[in-house]
Amino acid sequence: MRTTVIGVMGPGNGAREIDRHVAKELGSAIASQGWILLTGGRNTGVMEAASQGAKQAGGLTIGILPTATDEGMSEAVDIAIFTDLGSARNNINVLSSHAIVACGMGAGTASEVALALKAKKPVILLNCDRTTQAFFENLSSDNLWIAETVEEAIAILQNALIKG
Amino acid sequence: MRTTVIGVMGPGNGAREIDRHVAKELGSAIASQGWILLTGGRNTGVMEAASQGAKQAGGLTIGILPTATDEGMSEAVDIAIFTDLGSARNNINVLSSHAIVACGMGAGTASEVALALKAKKPVILLNCDRTTQAFFENLSSDNLWIAETVEEAIAILQNALIKG
Amino acid sequence: MRTTVIGVMGPGNGAREIDRHVAKELGSAIASQGWILLTGGRNTGVMEAASQGAKQAGGLTIGILPTATDEGMSEAVDIAIFTDLGSARNNINVLSSHAIVACGMGAGTASEVALALKAKKPVILLNCDRTTQAFFENLSSDNLWIAETVEEAIAILQNALIKG
Amino acid sequence: MRTTVIGVMGPGNGAREIDRHVAKELGSAIASQGWILLTGGRNTGVMEAASQGAKQAGGLTIGILPTATDEGMSEAVDIAIFTDLGSARNNINVLSSHAIVACGMGAGTASEVALALKAKKPVILLNCDRTTQAFFENLSSDNLWIAETVEEAIAILQNALIKG
Repeated sequence: MRTTVIGVMGPGNGAREIDRHVAKELGSAIASQGWILLTGGRNTGVMEAASQGAKQAGGLTIGILPTATDEGMSEAVDIAIFTDLGSARNNINVLSSHAIVACGMGAGTASEVALALKAKKPVILLNCDRTTQAFFENLSSDNLWIAETVEEAIAILQNALIKG
Repeated sequence: MRTTVIGVMGPGNGAREIDRHVAKELGSAIASQGWILLTGGRNTGVMEAASQGAKQAGGLTIGILPTATDEGMSEAVDIAIFTDLGSARNNINVLSSHAIVACGMGAGTASEVALALKAKKPVILLNCDRTTQAFFENLSSDNLWIAETVEEAIAILQNALIKG
Repeated sequence: MRTTVIGVMGPGNGAREIDRHVAKELGSAIASQGWILLTGGRNTGVMEAASQGAKQAGGLTIGILPTATDEGMSEAVDIAIFTDLGSARNNINVLSSHAIVACGMGAGTASEVALALKAKKPVILLNCDRTTQAFFENLSSDNLWIAETVEEAIAILQNALIKG
Repeated sequence: MRTTVIGVMGPGNGAREIDRHVAKELGSAIASQGWILLTGGRNTGVMEAASQGAKQAGGLTIGILPTATDEGMSEAVDIAIFTDLGSARNNINVLSSHAIVACGMGAGTASEVALALKAKKPVILLNCDRTTQAFFENLSSDNLWIAETVEEAIAILQNALIKG
């Protein structure tokens, strides 16, 4: 049986300190569940922090890079997929994950949450403000959850994956 | 010089009557400006209505299809690009347009607006509620405009294209 | 009814003088038939020459660019599709054409001929040596033709499009 | 340091018995070297056989699927990447591998060998006839090798990876 893959999406260069902090904790918690972490694979922001967290907890990490080569890739990526697709790779991030956690928000992350809702994947919003929560709830309330903490996000994932 | 291409994005099957009505008017107005209309090319919702409007005004229409063949394609598409990329083609819609108008909102449309903001393309929101407007303004206020009518959207496009 | 689109594929920087010469003549002949010319859209080699030829004969040209912007684009492209997909865009070239003519051979062109054979599109080889002809005939003889001149290529296209 | 990833490409439904036999042996040999096996991930032909071989030798397998879901996926795939890109995913297979072995030949495989030569990746042809060998040698002799046996392929990979 294929191991569960959890995608963590979030801002790159525009990530806040709190986004990176929570992403690292989230990456560790995902690895501790025995799940594989999937990110956009770059060496910045939420991608970098989540991948670092997962490695520190002994997990396996996948990075779906927008580039053709490993320039700008996180060193915490174990399995690197080089797409050379730019932002079109965002849809692969979503389709290759059993569920998605958005940790913070930016334009790229918003496209991934929207594509995940379209693909009927479970999506959890973490570190997102009320406007963001309301916008995505209006788009699709069926497969969207709001989490206030990493523990809450993990509990929702456990439930969503049992249901799914 | 390359002719100006305006992308009109909006819900497919989930489009409201008002979205289709405004999209048709918008397609006609774009064609009347001598601009080329670009859509996702399917025979439903905002894509179909905008393409029909542009053809009635004697314009040229491009459709960027998610499929490999013309099954489900609008008959009002003149130039059909078959991508077989599913939702990954949304980024091509954005990159191939000088500016984007979202007419109504859905998960696919949200991904296109987000990708357009990321690519620094001028984006106009038409037929969108306050929450949607506030969400995208928070993401990027620099290249986002709100329009209440088709006339207003055309005026904003004229200004944005002169500036750009 | 959608206008017939003929894709002309061939080397970029590696094109020979004879490839560019024949490509220009071919582009003109395609335009003279009232067909739309589709190429990879760059300002070099067979793409550039075929697009120039089509424009001189008053035709319409589509360019499917590997890039996100118009840097390196042929000025003879009317309709530019910016994919930002690198070589993954080669499959879009193939799927968006009713038939393909390879004019000369290189690694990128070989991938396009192979993808076209896989997609069951009519393919014509022009300016190709015996080894190339034999290789592709072994892959799929059903939808592959060899042409010695532009006139022959046009005649084969007319027949293939009537049959198809 | 990123683990070495070897891509094995070859026909799906059109694979010969000898292609599947050699692919299984090749998958095992790659796993025995401690390398990760990457394939197109489907449950047929060379992809299936190579993945099965790698799993029997205790290796890790990546599958880059053309689809959005796991329908038609090999059960011997550990890490599944769902691209929904159809044949456009062939370029990702190539870019994500340190080197490529083609085991047998078909239209899809030909596109992958051509894209790999374009991307300057080391490519080994196994189970390929003289015409195929001559065709690709004409395209690019610098990074192309011919192997007669799995052992020879492994030895070439060891050398190519040390040089690369």
